[in-house]
Amino acid sequence: MEGKEEDVRVGANKFSERQPIGTAAQGDDKDYKEPPPAPLFEPGELCSWSFYRAGIAEFIATFLFLYVSVLTVMGVVRADSKCSTVGIQGIAWAFGGMIFALVYCTAGISGGHINPAVTFGLFLARKLSLTRAVYYMVMQCLGAICGAGVVKGFEKGRYNSLGGGANVVNAGYTKGDGLGAEIVGTFVLVYTVFSATDAKRNARDSHVPILAPLPIGFAVFLVHLATIPITGTGINPARSLGAAIIYNKDHAWDDHWIFWVGPFIGAALAALYHQVVIRAIPFKSK
Amino acid sequence: MEGKEEDVRVGANKFSERQPIGTAAQGDDKDYKEPPPAPLFEPGELCSWSFYRAGIAEFIATFLFLYVSVLTVMGVVRADSKCSTVGIQGIAWAFGGMIFALVYCTAGISGGHINPAVTFGLFLARKLSLTRAVYYMVMQCLGAICGAGVVKGFEKGRYNSLGGGANVVNAGYTKGDGLGAEIVGTFVLVYTVFSATDAKRNARDSHVPILAPLPIGFAVFLVHLATIPITGTGINPARSLGAAIIYNKDHAWDDHWIFWVGPFIGAALAALYHQVVIRAIPFKSK
Amino acid sequence: MEGKEEDVRVGANKFSERQPIGTAAQGDDKDYKEPPPAPLFEPGELCSWSFYRAGIAEFIATFLFLYVSVLTVMGVVRADSKCSTVGIQGIAWAFGGMIFALVYCTAGISGGHINPAVTFGLFLARKLSLTRAVYYMVMQCLGAICGAGVVKGFEKGRYNSLGGGANVVNAGYTKGDGLGAEIVGTFVLVYTVFSATDAKRNARDSHVPILAPLPIGFAVFLVHLATIPITGTGINPARSLGAAIIYNKDHAWDDHWIFWVGPFIGAALAALYHQVVIRAIPFKSK
Amino acid sequence: MEGKEEDVRVGANKFSERQPIGTAAQGDDKDYKEPPPAPLFEPGELCSWSFYRAGIAEFIATFLFLYVSVLTVMGVVRADSKCSTVGIQGIAWAFGGMIFALVYCTAGISGGHINPAVTFGLFLARKLSLTRAVYYMVMQCLGAICGAGVVKGFEKGRYNSLGGGANVVNAGYTKGDGLGAEIVGTFVLVYTVFSATDAKRNARDSHVPILAPLPIGFAVFLVHLATIPITGTGINPARSLGAAIIYNKDHAWDDHWIFWVGPFIGAALAALYHQVVIRAIPFKSK
Repeated sequence: MEGKEEDVRVGANKFSERQPIGTAAQGDDKDYKEPPPAPLFEPGELCSWSFYRAGIAEFIATFLFLYVSVLTVMGVVRADSKCSTVGIQGIAWAFGGMIFALVYCTAGISGGHINPAVTFGLFLARKLSLTRAVYYMVMQCLGAICGAGVVKGFEKGRYNSLGGGANVVNAGYTKGDGLGAEIVGTFVLVYTVFSATDAKRNARDSHVPILAPLPIGFAVFLVHLATIPITGTGINPARSLGAAIIYNKDHAWDDHWIFWVGPFIGAALAALYHQVVIRAIPFKSK
Repeated sequence: MEGKEEDVRVGANKFSERQPIGTAAQGDDKDYKEPPPAPLFEPGELCSWSFYRAGIAEFIATFLFLYVSVLTVMGVVRADSKCSTVGIQGIAWAFGGMIFALVYCTAGISGGHINPAVTFGLFLARKLSLTRAVYYMVMQCLGAICGAGVVKGFEKGRYNSLGGGANVVNAGYTKGDGLGAEIVGTFVLVYTVFSATDAKRNARDSHVPILAPLPIGFAVFLVHLATIPITGTGINPARSLGAAIIYNKDHAWDDHWIFWVGPFIGAALAALYHQVVIRAIPFKSK
Repeated sequence: MEGKEEDVRVGANKFSERQPIGTAAQGDDKDYKEPPPAPLFEPGELCSWSFYRAGIAEFIATFLFLYVSVLTVMGVVRADSKCSTVGIQGIAWAFGGMIFALVYCTAGISGGHINPAVTFGLFLARKLSLTRAVYYMVMQCLGAICGAGVVKGFEKGRYNSLGGGANVVNAGYTKGDGLGAEIVGTFVLVYTVFSATDAKRNARDSHVPILAPLPIGFAVFLVHLATIPITGTGINPARSLGAAIIYNKDHAWDDHWIFWVGPFIGAALAALYHQVVIRAIPFKSK
Repeated sequence: MEGKEEDVRVGANKFSERQPIGTAAQGDDKDYKEPPPAPLFEPGELCSWSFYRAGIAEFIATFLFLYVSVLTVMGVVRADSKCSTVGIQGIAWAFGGMIFALVYCTAGISGGHINPAVTFGLFLARKLSLTRAVYYMVMQCLGAICGAGVVKGFEKGRYNSLGGGANVVNAGYTKGDGLGAEIVGTFVLVYTVFSATDAKRNARDSHVPILAPLPIGFAVFLVHLATIPITGTGINPARSLGAAIIYNKDHAWDDHWIFWVGPFIGAALAALYHQVVIRAIPFKSK
C-alpha cells in the first residue's frame, strides 16, 4: 500500500487513545519506542554470568515442564476409566498451567521461553542474539530429555506400553492435518507471546505487562484442548523431542519432523504478523 | 425520578469513597471524565493504518477463536464416551479461554471485540463510529467463516455428521427459550465488557483495568456452562454465522435468526443498563 | 493479654516490613489508617442516586448469579450420565466464576456483596450503615427469586422434579453437619472478603487490591467443591431463599433455617477474627 | 568457575534490561538490594503482637486448607462413579485453589506459608528467624490436625474406610518413587515461592508481585495433577501429618517419613538453586 508508512505516523498523532479495551486504540505508537534489534552475535554475553544462568533456568524449567506434564499423561493413560483420573482436560491443564507458572518464574531470568519455537519466533523478530537462541534451544532440549527420563524411571515397564507421552499423528488424520494443527497452534502461542511482550509496555496501568504469563499459559492450555485428539499437541519441539528420545519407537520418529517444522512455521508466521501488521515496522521511518 | 440529575452530582461530592470492594462507592464519579461520544462517521479513520490494522486483528482473532473452539467441539462430539475427551466443560473453557487470550492480545489494537454483539453494544454507547462498527462486524464474520472452514478441512466427512459446531435450539426447549437464553447470556457478557471498560479507569490501583480480559473471558465461559444444553450457546453472531455457513444444513438455518436477534437485544439492554443506571448519563448536566 | 495494645504499637514501629509474601510482615500497620466506622443511619444516603443505583446493581447481580448457576445445575441434574454434562465441578465453577465476574463488575458501584452474609459481616465491622445493609439484603433476595424464576420458566415441568437447585441436607449427614458446613464455608468466603478489602490497601504494588475479585470467586468455588455433597452449598442466604421460594416443596423449607443461621454465624466469626486478631482493633488506642 | 563473582557485577552494569518476558533480563541485579539475612533468634519478635498474630493466621489457614481439601477428597472417594463427583481434577483444584486463596489472605500477616516445607526453605534462605520458623511449623501442624479432625466429625464411620485423605505410596510404585515424587513436587512449589518473593520486586509494573499468589496456587494444583496417582501428593508435611494423625492406621504411618523427608529435601534444593544459581549470592561481594 502506497503511503502506508505515513499513515502509521499520521495516525499516531491524529487520534488520541480513548480506552484500551472496548474501543480501538488509535495511534497507540506515540510513546512506544522500538528497542534496537539484538545483534546476531554479542560477544559480551559469553562473559556474563546472567547468560549462563539464563540457560540453566531454561534447562530447569523445561525439565520441570516435561516432568509434570508427562507424568500427568501417564496417570491418565494407564487408568481403565478416564473418569477416575484427572482426564484429558487435566492433561491440558498440566501443560498450560506449567507454562503459566514457569513463565512467571523464569521471565525475569531468561525471558521465559521454555520452547524452541518461542525462541525461534523471538529470534526472527531480533529480540535475542543467534548465540543465545541456539544456546537456549540446546538447553531446552536437554531439559526435556531429562524430564521425560525421570518419568520413565518412575513408570518403568509401563512407560513404553502407554505411549510415553510422545507426539504422533492419530488415526483418522493425515500428516497434513497434523502439520496444519501444529502450525496454527504454535501461531496462537507465539502470537500471544508477542502481544504480551511488545505492545504498549509503557502503559503502566495496562493489563498487558501485569497479566502476561497468564494468557501465555492459557494459550498452551487452549491449543491442547483443541488438538490433543489430532497429534497429542506438540507446539514445542523440545517437548516432542524429549518424549520421542525417551520413548524411542519407530512410529514416534516417523512423524517427528512434523513437530519441528510445524512449530517453526507457526512461530515464523506469528513473528511476521506481529512485525508487519501489528507493529508495521517495515513501513516506519528509521 | 425528579431531581435525579442533582442527586448524582450531590452524591459525587458529599460522600467520599472508602473502599472499592466491600463497601459501596459513594459518588465515585468525582474524577471520572466521560469521553465525548464517537462521531457516526469519522473520515480521518479511513486514512489511518491503525483502522485497517484493527480490522485485520479482528479477522485473525475471530479466525483463531472459531478454529480452536469448533475443533474442541469436534473432539468431544466424535468420541463415544465423553469421559475420554475434555468434556462439555472443556468446550466451555475453549470458548471462554480463547476470548480471554484474544481480548488480552487485541485490546490494544482493535479494542478486542471479536463479537458483533459486543461491537453493537459499544456502538450504541457511542464508543466507536458507525463506519468502524460495520467494518469490524464484516471482518469478524469473515474470520469466523474461515476458522470453521479450516476445522472442516481437518475433519472432512465427519464434520457434518457431527453437527459442525452449529447453534440450534435443542430438543426440550422452545424457540422462545433459546431466544431468552441468548438475550440474558449476551447481557452477562456485554455488561462485563462495559464494566471493564468504563468504570473508574483512572483509579490506578483498581482491579478494573488490570484484570479486564479475565472476567470477560470468564463471562463467556460461564454462559457456556449454563446454556450449552439449550442452544449450544451463541452470544456471538459471528461464531454462529461461521459455523452455520460451513455446516450449511436446513435445521441450522431455521434457528439462525435467534443467534442474531438474541445477542443484539442482550447487548442493547446491557448498553442501556450501563448508560442509564450505572453511569446515569441522561441525568447529568452536559 | 496484658499490654497487648502496646505490643501492637511497638511492633508497628520496631520492625520494618521486608516482603509481603514469604516473610512475615512485621508491624504492617504503620501507614494504615482505619476508616471511621459507618454510622448506623446515614440520612444523606437516601437522597443520593448512588444509593439507589447500588441497590439496583445488587439486584441485577444476584439475578444473573442465580440465573447462570441454577441453569447450570439443571443441565447437570437432568442428564442420565454426568459425563455428558459439565459435571459437578462445572457447577462449582458456575457459582464461583459468577461471583468473580460479578464482584469485578459491581465492586465500584455497590461494593460487590451479592450475598446477605457478606453484607452482614461487613455491617458488623461497621463498613456500611444499617439502612444500606437492610436495603442490600432485600434487593439481593428479590434478585435471587427472579433469577430462579426465569430458570423455572425455561425448564417448566422438569424444574421441580430435578430439585430446583434448592439447598437441603443430603442423606448421610445430620442437620448439625449441614449447619457446621455452612458456618465454616461462609467463614472462608467472608474471611477472604475481609482480607481483600482491608489489609494494606495503600501498598500500591501489592497483589491485594488488584487481584481482589479473583480469590473471592475462588473461595466460593472451593467451598462448593467441598460441600456440594453435604448441602449443595448455600453460604449465601439469598441464593438459598430464591431457589426455595421458586421450588417451594416442604423438604426444602424444613432445612431452610440452616442456610440463614449458618452463613450469618460464619460471617460473624470472620468479622470477629478479622477485627480482633488481624487488625487488633480493640487493643489499639483511639 | 573462576571470576564468577566479577561476572555477576560486570553483567549487572554492561547490559541494560530490555523486556521481562520474551527477552532475557541481562543484569537485572542493578537496583535490587538483597535484604540482610534474618537473625536466628530475634528476641524482640516475642514481645510483638504481630508475631503471635502471624502464628494464629498460619493455624487458621492450615485448618481451612485441610478442612476444604480433605472434605473434597471424601466427597470424591465415597461415590461409586467418579463422574458424579468433582473428580480427581476437582481434588487438585481444591488443594491448589485453597493455597491461592489462603496465600492471598495471609501473605500480609504471616508471609502466607501454610506449609512447613515452605517455612523450612525460606528459613534456609534466612528469610525468617529460627524461632519464627519453629513456631510456624507447630501452628501449621496443629491447624492441620484440627482441620482433618472436623472432617472426620462430619464423615464419622466413613472417614476411616475411605482412607481419610492420608498420603501413602500407591500400589505399583516403590517407596523410592514416592520419595522422588515428593522431592521434585516440593521443588516446583518452593521454587515458585522463591521466584514470587525475591526477584526484582522493585520493578513496579512487573507481574511478579501482583500475581504472586496465583502461580503459587497453580504450582500446588499442577503437582497434584501429576502425583496424585503416586502418593496422593503431600508436598506439605503439615497436611500429611494432620491426615495421618486423624486417620491413624499403620499403613499410613509406615510411609509417613517420606512426606517429611521428601518435602524438606525438595525445599532445600529449591533454596539452594535460588540462592546459588539465580541470585548468585555466594559469588557477590559483601
